[in-house]
Amino acid sequence: MASETKPYLGIEDYKVVGTRPIRHDGVDKVTGRAIYGADVLMPDLLHGKVLRSPHAHARIRSINTSRAEALPGVKAVITGRDLYRQMEDKEMELGEEIVNMKRLLSGFLATEKVLFQGHPVAAVAATSPHLAEEALDLIDVDYEVLPHVLDIHEAMKEDAPLLHEDMTTTSLGEATDKKSNNNKYGQYKLGDVEKGFAQADIVIEREFSTVMVHQGYIEPQNATALWNPDGQLTIWCSSQGSFGVRDQVAEILDLPVSKIRVIPLEIGGGFGGKVRAYLEPLAALLSKKTGQPVKMVMSRTEVLQATGPTPGSYIRAKMGATKEGKLVAAQAEIVFEAGAFPGTPIGAAALCMFSPYDIENVFIETYEPVVNKTSTSAYRAPGATNGALASEIIVDEICEQLEMDPLEFRMKNSSKEGSRRADGPTHPRIGHEEVVKAAMESDHYRSPLEGPNRGRGVASGFWPNGGGFSTAVASVNTDGTVGLVTGSIDIGGTRTACAMHLCEVLGITAEEVKPTVGDTDAVGYTGVTGGSRTCFATGWAAYEAAQDIKRQMITHAANQWEISSDNVAFEDGTFRPKSDPSKTFTFKELAAKLPGGTVVGRFTGKPKGGQAGGAFAHAIVDVEVDPDTGKVEILRATMIQDAGKAIYPDYVEGQMQGGMAQGIGWALNEEFIYNEKGELTNPSFLDYRMPTCLDLPMIESIIVEVPNPGHPYGARGA
Amino acid sequence: MASETKPYLGIEDYKVVGTRPIRHDGVDKVTGRAIYGADVLMPDLLHGKVLRSPHAHARIRSINTSRAEALPGVKAVITGRDLYRQMEDKEMELGEEIVNMKRLLSGFLATEKVLFQGHPVAAVAATSPHLAEEALDLIDVDYEVLPHVLDIHEAMKEDAPLLHEDMTTTSLGEATDKKSNNNKYGQYKLGDVEKGFAQADIVIEREFSTVMVHQGYIEPQNATALWNPDGQLTIWCSSQGSFGVRDQVAEILDLPVSKIRVIPLEIGGGFGGKVRAYLEPLAALLSKKTGQPVKMVMSRTEVLQATGPTPGSYIRAKMGATKEGKLVAAQAEIVFEAGAFPGTPIGAAALCMFSPYDIENVFIETYEPVVNKTSTSAYRAPGATNGALASEIIVDEICEQLEMDPLEFRMKNSSKEGSRRADGPTHPRIGHEEVVKAAMESDHYRSPLEGPNRGRGVASGFWPNGGGFSTAVASVNTDGTVGLVTGSIDIGGTRTACAMHLCEVLGITAEEVKPTVGDTDAVGYTGVTGGSRTCFATGWAAYEAAQDIKRQMITHAANQWEISSDNVAFEDGTFRPKSDPSKTFTFKELAAKLPGGTVVGRFTGKPKGGQAGGAFAHAIVDVEVDPDTGKVEILRATMIQDAGKAIYPDYVEGQMQGGMAQGIGWALNEEFIYNEKGELTNPSFLDYRMPTCLDLPMIESIIVEVPNPGHPYGARGA
Repeated sequence: MASETKPYLGIEDYKVVGTRPIRHDGVDKVTGRAIYGADVLMPDLLHGKVLRSPHAHARIRSINTSRAEALPGVKAVITGRDLYRQMEDKEMELGEEIVNMKRLLSGFLATEKVLFQGHPVAAVAATSPHLAEEALDLIDVDYEVLPHVLDIHEAMKEDAPLLHEDMTTTSLGEATDKKSNNNKYGQYKLGDVEKGFAQADIVIEREFSTVMVHQGYIEPQNATALWNPDGQLTIWCSSQGSFGVRDQVAEILDLPVSKIRVIPLEIGGGFGGKVRAYLEPLAALLSKKTGQPVKMVMSRTEVLQATGPTPGSYIRAKMGATKEGKLVAAQAEIVFEAGAFPGTPIGAAALCMFSPYDIENVFIETYEPVVNKTSTSAYRAPGATNGALASEIIVDEICEQLEMDPLEFRMKNSSKEGSRRADGPTHPRIGHEEVVKAAMESDHYRSPLEGPNRGRGVASGFWPNGGGFSTAVASVNTDGTVGLVTGSIDIGGTRTACAMHLCEVLGITAEEVKPTVGDTDAVGYTGVTGGSRTCFATGWAAYEAAQDIKRQMITHAANQWEISSDNVAFEDGTFRPKSDPSKTFTFKELAAKLPGGTVVGRFTGKPKGGQAGGAFAHAIVDVEVDPDTGKVEILRATMIQDAGKAIYPDYVEGQMQGGMAQGIGWALNEEFIYNEKGELTNPSFLDYRMPTCLDLPMIESIIVEVPNPGHPYGARGA
Repeated sequence: MASETKPYLGIEDYKVVGTRPIRHDGVDKVTGRAIYGADVLMPDLLHGKVLRSPHAHARIRSINTSRAEALPGVKAVITGRDLYRQMEDKEMELGEEIVNMKRLLSGFLATEKVLFQGHPVAAVAATSPHLAEEALDLIDVDYEVLPHVLDIHEAMKEDAPLLHEDMTTTSLGEATDKKSNNNKYGQYKLGDVEKGFAQADIVIEREFSTVMVHQGYIEPQNATALWNPDGQLTIWCSSQGSFGVRDQVAEILDLPVSKIRVIPLEIGGGFGGKVRAYLEPLAALLSKKTGQPVKMVMSRTEVLQATGPTPGSYIRAKMGATKEGKLVAAQAEIVFEAGAFPGTPIGAAALCMFSPYDIENVFIETYEPVVNKTSTSAYRAPGATNGALASEIIVDEICEQLEMDPLEFRMKNSSKEGSRRADGPTHPRIGHEEVVKAAMESDHYRSPLEGPNRGRGVASGFWPNGGGFSTAVASVNTDGTVGLVTGSIDIGGTRTACAMHLCEVLGITAEEVKPTVGDTDAVGYTGVTGGSRTCFATGWAAYEAAQDIKRQMITHAANQWEISSDNVAFEDGTFRPKSDPSKTFTFKELAAKLPGGTVVGRFTGKPKGGQAGGAFAHAIVDVEVDPDTGKVEILRATMIQDAGKAIYPDYVEGQMQGGMAQGIGWALNEEFIYNEKGELTNPSFLDYRMPTCLDLPMIESIIVEVPNPGHPYGARGA
C-alpha cells in the first residue's frame, strides 16, 4: 500500500500522460554525468570568495582592501562601492527609487551597514579558492557595532534598533512618515468575524511560534560569470529560473537584459531557495574587473548563514464552531520574520490557512518586521505551512472538545466549488472533500493505532498553484522523434512531465521526445520553476507547441495525398484522409517524408483560458514519543494530495514524499539557533539536523485526481 | 580604390541590410575567447589517435591490437570490425545496399583493403594523446601490398589495378557488368555541337591538367564524443553543418538521428572541406567502448593526407567562334580524380564552365575515376574553378587571334536573362554583363600596365549558389532586443548577415539582435553552411521569423490600443494606429509592454517562391614573371562579383578577397605531390606552400549588385 491513485470524474485515460517512463535526465544523474554548478570549468578560471560580516548589526566605518590586493594570486577585490558605482550615474534619474535601489544593492554587498551575521561585505577573485579565502583575512573592516534585534515582537516596538533608517511603516497600504522595522501591514476580510464568533458555541484561541528553517538543498549556491570586453555577460549557475536570474542581475548591474546570457546547469535542490540571486552579480563584477571568468561556490556555512530560509513566525489564531460542528468564524494575527530585508510570503499564509474550510467570517491581519537575521525566501508552498500549523491544531482541539472524528469534521466543513477564499476569489472545482475522503478510506486511517505513548495526527493544507509565462519550441526529426526546448529548469522530473504533454498530442512515446532546457538566449521568456507552476504552465506550452506541429503535419499529409488539410484526420498518432481511412501515415512515417526534414512548433505566453487549479493535501502521521528523552519516532506517514491529473505520477509521489520528509524535519528537528549576539550557532548539517532515511519510514502516498478544468489534461500541481 | 559597390536597378536602400556593423562573434574571436574544437575539455576526457595506412594500396591480412591494448593508459582500440559490427545485424535487411554501406564504412576505418596512404586502419583511446600515439606503434598490421594507380588516365585503362573490386562502370546512367575504376559517366548537351563548329571561323582546342589542392583551413578536423549508457551520443565538433554530421554519424553507426546531439563549435575555416565527417564516428565508438568522453584532433599531416582536397582534373576543351567574335560552339571532356572513393563535384564543373557565355551548341562528357589518393571533397564553388580555367584560357586565345579586347568579347557573348545553361535551365535575371562592365570601367583595367615581363589576365566565373532548408527561431526580450537562434554554422560572418535580415523587418539595429548557433537538439533542421546558401536561405529564415514576430507584435499593439490588428500600421520600426498616426509605439516600447515579456517567431523550411540567384565573378590580375627563376609576382588583383544585394558588404568583400587569395595559391604554389609509391611528399604547411600576406597585394573588390528577384532583399551569394 505504498502508493495508490484515486481518479475522479472527468479524469481520462491517456496514452502517455499518467504513465511512468524513465526520466530523460535520469541516466545522466545516476551515473554522475549531469553537470551542476560546481562542475563548470574553463580556461583562466578564477575563484571568488565572499567576506561576510561577523556582526548582526554594525556600521561600516571603513574597508581597506590594500593588503588583500597585494597578496600574490589575488586578481581583484570588490566592495559595495563597486556595486553602487554601477548605479551612481543614474542616481538623478532614479529619483525616489534610489532608496529602494540602494537597499536592494546593499543586500548583495553592504555599503553603510551590515544587517546580519553573514552579510556580504567584500569579495575576492584569486587564482585558487584557497588563496581567495586567505585574502579575505587581509581585508580590514572597521565596524561600529550597533544594538541588534532578533525577535519579531521586539523589532516592532517603538524603541527597537532600526535596521533600515529610512524605512517607514504603512497603514493599510498607505505610506506613513513613521520610521519602523515593519513596513507592511495587511488585512484580509470575509463576512463579519465578530458576528461569526457570536454564533459560535465553542471558540479556541491559541498562539504559535515557529523559527526559521532552511530548505536544506544539497547543492550550495554557485555562479560562474564571464564579462566579455564587448559588454556581453555570460553566467552559468544553478537556479530555479534562468530568466529570473537574468532579470535580477540586469537590475542590480543596470544592464539591458539582452547583454546577459544565463546558462542553466542542473540544480541540486531548490525548494524555493534558488529563486533569488546571491553570487551572480559579484562573480560578474569580479569578472569585469579581471577580464577572466570567475567561479564562486558557497560553503554550507554560507548557505545557512546568508541565503534565504523560510521566515520564523508568530501566529495568534482563533476559530469558532457551533456545537453541531460547523465552523462559523476564524481570525488570525500573523507576524512573519522577514530577516534583514523586507518581503515575506505572508500573503500566501493568509490566503491558505483557512482555505480547506468553508467559513463565512474570516479576519486576518499580517505584519512582516525585519530583524537582524538573513533575509528570508520561499520554501515549498511558502507561508502556507506556518498558517496550516495554527489552523489545523485549533481544528483538532475543536474536534476533541466536540468529540468528533477529525476527518468527519473536516469533511463537514470542507471548502467546495464556490466557497470563498480568505483573499476574496471563490474556489473553482477543487478536491478537498475527495482528499479527506481518501484519507478516511485509507488503509492507514482505518488501521488501529495501539500501544502506549503513541498518537495519530491529521492535517489538511492548501496551495493555489501557479500559472504564468512559459515558452516551448519543438522540432520534428526525420526519425519521427521530437526535440523539445523549454526555458524551465528541471526540478523533480519536469523535463519529462512537460514532454509528456507533447507526446500525448502527437501520439508518440516519452522515449521519442528529447527535452532540453534552453539558456536565456536560446529560448523565449519562461518563469521560474516554483509555486508548482512548471508542469502546468510549461507543460501546457509544450502541449501548444505540439498542436502547432500537428497543424503543420496535417498540411504536409494533405500535400502528400494532394487533398485539402480539412480532409485530414489525426488520431492516435495516425494521419488519415477522412474520405479514405485505409490510407495512413503514422507520425513517424510522415516525419520521414517532411521536405527538408523538420517542422518546428512553438508556444510562448500564458495559455488562453488556462487557470492554475488549487490543490489540497492531507497528511496522516503516527508517532511514538519516548517519555524519558522526548524523542519522537515516526511510525507511519501517509500523504494524500489532489494533483489533478497526475501527468507523471512517479514524480508527483516524489513531491509528496519529499514534502512529508521536509515537514517532519521542520516539525521535529530543524531550527536556526541564534545566540544573544545574533550569531547562528548551528551553521552546518551536523548541527542543523535534517532527517535522513534512517529517521523516516517509507512514506505512503495517495494521489487523488480531481481534474482541473483549466488545463487540457486536468493537471493541478504537486 | 580598395573596394567599391555598384548597385543596379531594383536594389533598394535599407536601414540595416547593406551596412557594416561589427560582427557579433568578433570580440570573442579577436580576444581568443571563442571556443573551437581543440578547446573542448571535460572530466575523464580520453584522447584518440588514428593508425593510418603507410601504403597506397594493400590488402589487410590481419590486425593484432593486443600489444597496444596492453599498454598502461590505453583504454580502447577499435578497427574496422567494430564499425562494421554496427551494421552486421542489418546485413540481411540491407540486401544490395550492403555493398554501398560497406564501402561507406571502409572510408572511416578500412576492413579488407587500404586504398590510400593515410587510410584509417585502427584508432586508440588513451589517457593522453602521447600515449595514444605510442600505442599506434604497437598495433601490428599485416599488409599485402598491391599495385596502385595514381593517374586518372591510367586508372581508366582496362588493365588498371581495381580499387573497389565490386565497382562497375555505367553507360549514360545505366549500370553495366563491367568492372572499372570509373563508375560514372555524364553528358550535357545543348543544340548540335558539330553544326556549331561548322559555323565557326576559328576553333581552338586545348588540354588542361590540374592536380589536387587542399582548402588549407587553419583548424584541423576534430571531434569529441560522449556515448552515454542510455544510448545518447553527444558530439562536439567543428564542421560546416551540425545536422549533416548528425545524419552521417547516424548512418555510419546505424543510430536514429535523435539519439545523436551534435554541438557545434566555432569553425577555423572549412571552404567545403568540413562537410564530411571523419573522426566523429571513431570518437563515438571509442567512447562507447570506454564509457568516457573521447577527443580526437588531427595533425596537419593527417589533414593533408586523409581529408578531402579538391579533385585534380584533366580537361580537353574546344571552343569555336565566328570571325565577328560570336561564340558558336563549345565542347569538353572533363575527367575528375575522385580519390579513393567515388564522387566528385563534376556536375558543377559542367554546368559552370561555359555559363558566362550564351553559346547555342554545347557538348560535355564527364568521367570520375577513383585513384589511390585520399577521397576528394568540395572546395569553394567545387568544380567550377577547374572548368573555368579551361574555358577562360581558350576564350583569351580566341580574343588574341581575333585581336579583340577580351572584355569586349566577353560582353558581346555574355549570358543574359533567358540564356540557357549547359545543364538545361535558362538563366533568370543575372549579372554577367554588369560584372564585365564593372571590370571594363574599373580603375584597374583602365590603368596601363607597363614594363617588361608583365602581363594582365582576366577571367569570368559562375556559381549557381544554393538554397535549401534552414530554421530560425527568434525571441523578443523586454528591452526590445531579439535573440535569434539558427542552425547555420557561422562562416564568414553569416551570424550577422542572417541577423541583419531580421533587423530590417523589425526596424532594430544589428546591435539589438543577438544571434547564436543552436545545436541539433536546440533548433530545427538546417542545411550545411556551404554552396553560398547560408546568407540566402538562413537569412531568409530569419526574415520569415521576423515576419512572424511582426504579426504577433501588431496584435499586441492592437490590444494595447484596443483596436483590431488590421488597423495597425508598422513602418520603420514604429507601430501606429492607421486612424491616429500620432499614437506610436517603437518596437522597443512595445516589447517592454509584452505580457510575460516575449514573443517567439519561427520559420523552418525552404521559403516559398525563393530562388537562389546564380552569380558571376570576374577577376583582373597583373603579374610580373622573373625570367630567370620563373617566380611570379602578383602586382595588382581586382575581384568583381555580382553578389545581388550585399547584405553584409564587409564579409562579401572578405569572401571575394579570400577567394582571390586561394585562387592565386592554386595557380602559383599549391599542389599535392605524390611519389611513385603513392606517398604524399609534402604533407605540411612548410612543404605545401600556401600564399601568405607577404605573397599578395591588397586585393581590390568591386561588388556589383544586380538584385536576385528570388530573395526579399535581392541577395545572391558570395
